[in-house]
Amino acid sequence: MTSSTYKLTYFTVMALGEPIRWLLSYGGLQFQDIRLCHEEWEAQKNKSPFGALPLLEIDGKVMHQSVAICRYLGAVVGLSGKNAWENFEIDIVVDSISDLRTKIATYNKLPNSSQTRAQLRLALLNETIPFYLNRFEKMASEGYVANGKLS
Amino acid sequence: MTSSTYKLTYFTVMALGEPIRWLLSYGGLQFQDIRLCHEEWEAQKNKSPFGALPLLEIDGKVMHQSVAICRYLGAVVGLSGKNAWENFEIDIVVDSISDLRTKIATYNKLPNSSQTRAQLRLALLNETIPFYLNRFEKMASEGYVANGKLS
Repeated sequence: MTSSTYKLTYFTVMALGEPIRWLLSYGGLQFQDIRLCHEEWEAQKNKSPFGALPLLEIDGKVMHQSVAICRYLGAVVGLSGKNAWENFEIDIVVDSISDLRTKIATYNKLPNSSQTRAQLRLALLNETIPFYLNRFEKMASEGYVANGKLS
Repeated sequence: MTSSTYKLTYFTVMALGEPIRWLLSYGGLQFQDIRLCHEEWEAQKNKSPFGALPLLEIDGKVMHQSVAICRYLGAVVGLSGKNAWENFEIDIVVDSISDLRTKIATYNKLPNSSQTRAQLRLALLNETIPFYLNRFEKMASEGYVANGKLS
């Protein structure tokens, strides 16, 4: 499919790195799977494009932004839509999931003691998460979230 | 270019709606430009896919997610990359801008009185915003942020 070399750098968690690992594995693409602890990352952070992980080196070129990486790899391994409209349907799901993830991450990053955090936690548990999960369930009611096929 | 009908629904501000208006205008595509005040939106929010604006109706089908809408319209009006790699380069810029926007929006949504808000404001003004603007300036140093051309 391709003779490119891939080197993924991320933390020792799943989070934003795992979908990239899945896509590379799905496509049977060999890759270096570098997993850093936070101290290791802090030591080399300044050399990265936007001071954030994951990074994917493709043939030596350092690329970033997890969703952009996944969309590109989706195209490489044949999981993109067959036209712009199908890609649109996929992107809508991806961005809706990112919205939910961002809301949870925003809560997670607030200091434990803050009152805002406690309020956000309640809103997440009682409103936001059930709302999104309900919508995703409806989207997937026929087996796939977009275009009636794997993407 | 297309005989589709477009109906954009958004608030009476620029924000996430304006890039959609730009793309439709750039492509010479006629569209209904519905601008709601918050009270009008609250009254019809429940009928929308994820309770959020903007929405773009294309030939009567209600689509959502502002970035997904822009990526699709980019393809329709001929502003996408010429291959998956060029689209990857564009997506990296788009998602980096979204990251900055999200950080500012997170701050904006916190209650005025919260201590977290005051701390975030300082971090944004002194670190985050200068950091991103500096990176974007470097990316655009040769005139365009991606692929050496308009996208």
